[in-house]
Amino acid sequence: MSNLDQTLVNTFKGIVGNENTLTDASECWPYGYDNSRQHAPPDVVLFPTSHQQISDIVTACYQRGIPLVARGRGTGTTGAAVPVKGGVVLSLEHMDKIIDIDPDNRSMDVQPGVTNAEVQRAAARHGFFWPPDPTSGDVCTVGGNLACNAAGPRAIKYGTSRDNVLGLHAVTGTGDSIRTGVYTTKGVVGYDLTRLLIGAEGTLAVITRATLKLTPMAEIVRTLRAVYQDIHSAARAVAAIMSQPITPCALEIMDGKCIELANQYKDLGLPEHAGALLMIEVDGAADAIDGAVERVKTAAGNDGLLEIEAADSDAARKQLWQARKALSPALRHVAPKKINEDVVVPVSRIPELIDGLQSLAEEHGISIVNFGHAGNGNIHVNLLIDPDDPQQMAQTQPCLDKLFQLVLDLNGTLSGEHGIGMEKRQYVSREIDETTMKLMRNIKQQFDPAGILNPGKLFPD
Amino acid sequence: MSNLDQTLVNTFKGIVGNENTLTDASECWPYGYDNSRQHAPPDVVLFPTSHQQISDIVTACYQRGIPLVARGRGTGTTGAAVPVKGGVVLSLEHMDKIIDIDPDNRSMDVQPGVTNAEVQRAAARHGFFWPPDPTSGDVCTVGGNLACNAAGPRAIKYGTSRDNVLGLHAVTGTGDSIRTGVYTTKGVVGYDLTRLLIGAEGTLAVITRATLKLTPMAEIVRTLRAVYQDIHSAARAVAAIMSQPITPCALEIMDGKCIELANQYKDLGLPEHAGALLMIEVDGAADAIDGAVERVKTAAGNDGLLEIEAADSDAARKQLWQARKALSPALRHVAPKKINEDVVVPVSRIPELIDGLQSLAEEHGISIVNFGHAGNGNIHVNLLIDPDDPQQMAQTQPCLDKLFQLVLDLNGTLSGEHGIGMEKRQYVSREIDETTMKLMRNIKQQFDPAGILNPGKLFPD
Repeated sequence: MSNLDQTLVNTFKGIVGNENTLTDASECWPYGYDNSRQHAPPDVVLFPTSHQQISDIVTACYQRGIPLVARGRGTGTTGAAVPVKGGVVLSLEHMDKIIDIDPDNRSMDVQPGVTNAEVQRAAARHGFFWPPDPTSGDVCTVGGNLACNAAGPRAIKYGTSRDNVLGLHAVTGTGDSIRTGVYTTKGVVGYDLTRLLIGAEGTLAVITRATLKLTPMAEIVRTLRAVYQDIHSAARAVAAIMSQPITPCALEIMDGKCIELANQYKDLGLPEHAGALLMIEVDGAADAIDGAVERVKTAAGNDGLLEIEAADSDAARKQLWQARKALSPALRHVAPKKINEDVVVPVSRIPELIDGLQSLAEEHGISIVNFGHAGNGNIHVNLLIDPDDPQQMAQTQPCLDKLFQLVLDLNGTLSGEHGIGMEKRQYVSREIDETTMKLMRNIKQQFDPAGILNPGKLFPD
Repeated sequence: MSNLDQTLVNTFKGIVGNENTLTDASECWPYGYDNSRQHAPPDVVLFPTSHQQISDIVTACYQRGIPLVARGRGTGTTGAAVPVKGGVVLSLEHMDKIIDIDPDNRSMDVQPGVTNAEVQRAAARHGFFWPPDPTSGDVCTVGGNLACNAAGPRAIKYGTSRDNVLGLHAVTGTGDSIRTGVYTTKGVVGYDLTRLLIGAEGTLAVITRATLKLTPMAEIVRTLRAVYQDIHSAARAVAAIMSQPITPCALEIMDGKCIELANQYKDLGLPEHAGALLMIEVDGAADAIDGAVERVKTAAGNDGLLEIEAADSDAARKQLWQARKALSPALRHVAPKKINEDVVVPVSRIPELIDGLQSLAEEHGISIVNFGHAGNGNIHVNLLIDPDDPQQMAQTQPCLDKLFQLVLDLNGTLSGEHGIGMEKRQYVSREIDETTMKLMRNIKQQFDPAGILNPGKLFPD
């Protein structure tokens, strides 16, 4: 409450009620962090329950120039939900309703605070799913998914958040209500503000309602694990898989270092000299799945393939995923500090990326392990750092710097799904030229003339 | 040349050369129309051959406040390419190159003047296609497709233009060069300007290069024709098909009036009392197609189905498509003037739309026939009018007016793929609220502060 006068706090209490207003610093504290482990204390935390309340709150903030950060469950990894300028945190956890589900039209209307998992459960009851499947799916909210354009392994076949929303209701930085998009799967009236808001990290408007586009669930999923002697042969297989008609619903890669680490943690029974590994999932109709699996196997079968196994049962599927699942605890085990970047390069350039990373690791004396969504070229690059080693700590920034340059030189992008938030702001201008950036800032100005919506994010200073 | 001084014309000649500059009114004339049959004469027509030339031309226009309309092949139906304020028409027909095709990354870089058909041919050589498939595909350009967010029957499974582009190069209304999006299938750095430009009808920027996202061709396509006793049973079948996992690659509908007309033109051997017809195409792997067809047949088999036939050969496929193909000449035959609106409603509300249209037809004494992309709820509503009948002519506007209201009342949108152009401008504010519209205008202002890019389009006056 330190920086907000009592009159304003009373205004907020009048809007959402005393019981939905936190002003005590210790109560506000938990709403100041996200999974980036960055933290900044909010002055007040509000729990609105309706579009109108959000509009009233933003209007009050706009009139006084008070910063406002909308927040889901804080699972983002870039500090996008951290209120770096203080002010209001708008926690949308009480707006967690599924408003309507409409299987005939393959759509679902939801409030922003509903969790991804709840959406999946509700959709599944009608034989559908919503494609975005971030690792945090059990707890993260749809509002957060949309703010960050969240994705996950399924994006390779089914697209990201941006590809799976029909329309939005939102409140701009002036407190004005807007409606974007349509309730149908086609529509060309006016500019596409829906996709402009998705991925904007809450800097343009607060999303208060979304019409999600649902996809029918496939009848059956099969899992394959392909082990290669080196990353180049695995990457060639990825390109071959992506240029034939059966698109997998997951195509994940682990490099040799990942395999080594996972193997140290748990014996995975992989062939000796395994230099890279692909986890491939294929979905479809039950009577078509055998053929689909065979085609993908053929595409994956270039020189350098050491072993390919397919799982027919849930138990076998779990067994194949062991190597991937062992990776996260293994990584935690070997390095106290892990910097995870989610860069993207064109699929065909994955080998150059991995080779370049190997050189950077040697040059800077930092261990780098890589895994991720190979089918999208979206590689999670993990720098494993010992914070007690001043040499390594000093090398981190120069190494990241060269990593991002390498990615851009390969025609890639700095982030595939995690976003910019606070963490990558200083790198954005390497990817986006000055003219385009200025245009983005000007657009921001139209939505949020007072600059109150999630200040200090997405754009460089 | 009437409204442009010679200095400016000389500037243009200096940029693109004499041979790429038309100033003679009769030579300029053909560049003043599009398939809306509207016409307005441009003052000068320029044929740039590079991004830099376009940037130089727009800069010159910006400095003098001269209107500029970028143009593909003029196949649009809304007057979007008609230079209603005179000035410069920028014909992109000389920028018709495929710059690069990259099968490993499922992408193709093209200039805006390349035709949709040429893109399809080039992609097919590598086993791919680009999903947008408007009827004018043989001649229309990718630049026009992107300006209008063009689609076609395949959109039901593969999406519209907006879903199938990774990034753009463009020139804004100040002559500035921007690059939007990425070369990869994922990317969350900055705002999504790519999809903002797509469907903007050339009012925000001139697209000079596009990275298209390609899709692998299916091995095999099967065609089904399902005949129903009435539109309600056909519409129920559409909803049932859309809520099961096999998504057809085309799901087209014809109402009873269409069947009647097509039958008058040519005996199609349809069952008596056929009240509606669905053309369904299913694609996939060869070994999976039988199962897929069976599933779709089952979904289509509700009460009211009179007959369903599947084609196994190209000849049989052609035979089944006859009814649909006969429709266009039949329509031309019965009515000298045809007003074609491409409204969209949620799939489940197609019957209400058709019933409502029936009432409107009776109320206004105008014959209305309906067909279109049922899987997207995108219905082409055709008002058949005799221009020599003053009664009918007087009823046209009131009838259109109620048609659009009906569509909006059903949670639909005024246009699914044709766009706004000049034709639907006065209706846009019924669909888009004032606040959202103001925001769109403000965004336009950032891209095009002098208002020179395709003035008189998309927005109401």
